[in-house]
Amino acid sequence: MYIDLNADLGESFGVYTLGNDPAILDMVTSANIACGLHAGDPSTMRKTVQLALEKGASIGAHPGLPDLLGFGRRPMVLSPQEVYDYTVYQIGALFAFVKAEGGKLQHVKPHGALYNMASVDFTLAEAIAKAVYRVDSELILFGLAGSDLIRAGKKVGLRIANEVFADRTYQADGTLTSRQSNNALLHDPEQAVRQVIEIIKGGRVRTVSGEKIPLQADTICIHGDGEKALEMARLIHHRLLKEGIRLQSVGITKNE
Amino acid sequence: MYIDLNADLGESFGVYTLGNDPAILDMVTSANIACGLHAGDPSTMRKTVQLALEKGASIGAHPGLPDLLGFGRRPMVLSPQEVYDYTVYQIGALFAFVKAEGGKLQHVKPHGALYNMASVDFTLAEAIAKAVYRVDSELILFGLAGSDLIRAGKKVGLRIANEVFADRTYQADGTLTSRQSNNALLHDPEQAVRQVIEIIKGGRVRTVSGEKIPLQADTICIHGDGEKALEMARLIHHRLLKEGIRLQSVGITKNE
Amino acid sequence: MYIDLNADLGESFGVYTLGNDPAILDMVTSANIACGLHAGDPSTMRKTVQLALEKGASIGAHPGLPDLLGFGRRPMVLSPQEVYDYTVYQIGALFAFVKAEGGKLQHVKPHGALYNMASVDFTLAEAIAKAVYRVDSELILFGLAGSDLIRAGKKVGLRIANEVFADRTYQADGTLTSRQSNNALLHDPEQAVRQVIEIIKGGRVRTVSGEKIPLQADTICIHGDGEKALEMARLIHHRLLKEGIRLQSVGITKNE
Amino acid sequence: MYIDLNADLGESFGVYTLGNDPAILDMVTSANIACGLHAGDPSTMRKTVQLALEKGASIGAHPGLPDLLGFGRRPMVLSPQEVYDYTVYQIGALFAFVKAEGGKLQHVKPHGALYNMASVDFTLAEAIAKAVYRVDSELILFGLAGSDLIRAGKKVGLRIANEVFADRTYQADGTLTSRQSNNALLHDPEQAVRQVIEIIKGGRVRTVSGEKIPLQADTICIHGDGEKALEMARLIHHRLLKEGIRLQSVGITKNE
Repeated sequence: MYIDLNADLGESFGVYTLGNDPAILDMVTSANIACGLHAGDPSTMRKTVQLALEKGASIGAHPGLPDLLGFGRRPMVLSPQEVYDYTVYQIGALFAFVKAEGGKLQHVKPHGALYNMASVDFTLAEAIAKAVYRVDSELILFGLAGSDLIRAGKKVGLRIANEVFADRTYQADGTLTSRQSNNALLHDPEQAVRQVIEIIKGGRVRTVSGEKIPLQADTICIHGDGEKALEMARLIHHRLLKEGIRLQSVGITKNE
Repeated sequence: MYIDLNADLGESFGVYTLGNDPAILDMVTSANIACGLHAGDPSTMRKTVQLALEKGASIGAHPGLPDLLGFGRRPMVLSPQEVYDYTVYQIGALFAFVKAEGGKLQHVKPHGALYNMASVDFTLAEAIAKAVYRVDSELILFGLAGSDLIRAGKKVGLRIANEVFADRTYQADGTLTSRQSNNALLHDPEQAVRQVIEIIKGGRVRTVSGEKIPLQADTICIHGDGEKALEMARLIHHRLLKEGIRLQSVGITKNE
Repeated sequence: MYIDLNADLGESFGVYTLGNDPAILDMVTSANIACGLHAGDPSTMRKTVQLALEKGASIGAHPGLPDLLGFGRRPMVLSPQEVYDYTVYQIGALFAFVKAEGGKLQHVKPHGALYNMASVDFTLAEAIAKAVYRVDSELILFGLAGSDLIRAGKKVGLRIANEVFADRTYQADGTLTSRQSNNALLHDPEQAVRQVIEIIKGGRVRTVSGEKIPLQADTICIHGDGEKALEMARLIHHRLLKEGIRLQSVGITKNE
Repeated sequence: MYIDLNADLGESFGVYTLGNDPAILDMVTSANIACGLHAGDPSTMRKTVQLALEKGASIGAHPGLPDLLGFGRRPMVLSPQEVYDYTVYQIGALFAFVKAEGGKLQHVKPHGALYNMASVDFTLAEAIAKAVYRVDSELILFGLAGSDLIRAGKKVGLRIANEVFADRTYQADGTLTSRQSNNALLHDPEQAVRQVIEIIKGGRVRTVSGEKIPLQADTICIHGDGEKALEMARLIHHRLLKEGIRLQSVGITKNE
């Protein structure tokens, strides 16, 4: 029994520092590295790739919307062609740093509003999936478990990884509770850990309305910033090991 | 006897159009495509790559300074590490579009102020050369004939292409006459064509002070924008063919 | 009988030129000048302000979304506070150029997606109106005739100008036909001119479904770019004069 | 006996936070607020203006180079016209927020590389001074004590404020020791405080070569970021009060 832990990293920009990448990298097996449109810059990308390689984490591109001011969190109306183009651009930029450092790019996980939009809009999801496939058909696409992004990845022939969230609550239809709602987040780390373990071991999650629904998890998202992010990351990391769950990156699992 | 003709392309941005890429592409054998920092954007890059492949031109990345407002023409004080990082980023972004379209990246030619700075600053030149080499050691580095960029390319082990300019005048030391000078440009297309032919056939150029100096040319730069750019491009293209000079991209020549 | 003719100007950026501002300025009485977020840059703003003052056009700020790549035409999900902040910023930037040149800022007209969003979302419209009012309560707010933007302007105590479009068709409820529809545009300049004259003289417009509805017009939008923009602008300008309709800026009318 | 204490504030951007503005604002009498080109954004500007007004600090615009990635610290080759345009733009943007909040703009202090370039290049200094004067001739220009920026301000007819630095060392010619040198900074807060007091009370400073030279101080720069910035700010603030030196903004002093 094994699982991948991933975090969004490399989100600093110029003189601005965000998150605690070195500490988070000790806890995860996959690093999603920002590519300069919603966050990150060429120097941050190089440094984060070097750090991920040192720490042994697998590396993924983390493309976002072209909105640095809004950190890629504000939905924008984009055509599928624009989404395709922005995705190709960002994967390529990160790929070059990984190659220059002698590493290998493992996966692609869209960021923020792009991730959310593609979870429920198959056309946009397919644009992302095609971009990934055409740049490198061996890349693994990370998407919200059971979402349009996962379906689109499978359709174009990519390997996919169903992503679940430790500290988010789920609706009866398997979607995440909106952040607008009061009960969107599990603030108690213990509860988050129990949710993760039940998903991994039991393949199901208890929804906000109380019933349990099936939920497949290939990778767990650990937040990289925020006050308690590191504490939560450490707790999840250690408790999973204690439960006998091996932590290994999706690329390794999928290649076995 | 053969020569490569190159032009800077893909310099449109969003709704803004610059140059006449389709017409210029009919005249050149190598296309230097902007990568989004000084000009160009992901959609323009994709379209320009598709167009270059259709027209049979070899494709190069054309990285520039992060200064869209100044079109990458304003010198900035950057560290070699920053120059390295910006170069890796931009090569990667263009590489991904070329790969997605089933093509192959042939070369890298820095743009504007970055090109000029690297022509006379070996440290910056080496940062660019290392970036190119580490992303793909098979890439060819275009630089001003005989400049530090050429020397740096050779030092790191890259294949290089000495670039000359049809419509620029030369100083006794082989450098270009500064654009601040009145006699920086050859405005007469006939004179420009004669200069090109003498460089290719004779391996030398007449300087502004009258003497002739040796000048190696692997590729000739044809401007892609400006009123008379297309006319000049056509004249050079046709006259070279008439002189029995074959037009072929540097990549083909270097591989023979 | 009089009317204001306005056009969006100053939409060039860096080396990129858009539209034919000097020629369009001869035809209009009010110039909406881009402020650097969706288009325009500080140097373009200064030059456009100078040109408008020379030509005697009244000057307005033309704030847009922070999306240069999309020219401010792609809707983004923004909070009213963000919209307020972006509007204050852009009005101030343009105001400074107008003041430095000894002129006076007359109005504010939001651009593109910001204009469209504020036409149908009263909360965003009010954010814009408050921004205008708090920077200078004497400014006139331009908005789609009868829209939420007009209502919000009146509510906060601003003078407003109802804007109509010469070459767009209208729905039975007074809104513009969506650009997604085939019949969104009047391609025949003669038909556009007749529509404008009927609106000004008759205070009504024939909708796509055939009936006539009342429509108040304080200012007519003349497009500044596109192939036929100048031709259309000239035709409307001259025909209105011929019909005995005086062309004067809204500021003059409102002050009479 | 009185002095102004100023700090650079509002340098956060989007989700990125820089410095501890509320705490620093308790220590200073003048706040230089970033204007969106090298740092800051419209929402940060509004919030910082509101905070400065609450805390009773006088407000200045802090225009910088258009280089967010480099935080305006990397010299760029710009024409005086470009410098003028960027300065007008940024003053206007900040002015609008100050006006919207019912405050008054007191001064302008260029940032980073723009400040340094204008200290030793009279043409650029004059471009800045003209921009300030033309937007509002009552504004006070802050510049390095005795530099070209001060001379240019006087020439165009502006009130000026000679700025000195608590923790920087001085050369025999009155310029700051370059940050490239080992002895550029006074790391000992006590030493910095003594330097400040000697400048204010004695009108002179001990240079790195040991002699004392005259130095006029109208305002002292307190750094707003960095680990020890707040501690140093507090020490200087309290020790000056203890020495019987009144802390008041330059605008008040100049108006007395």
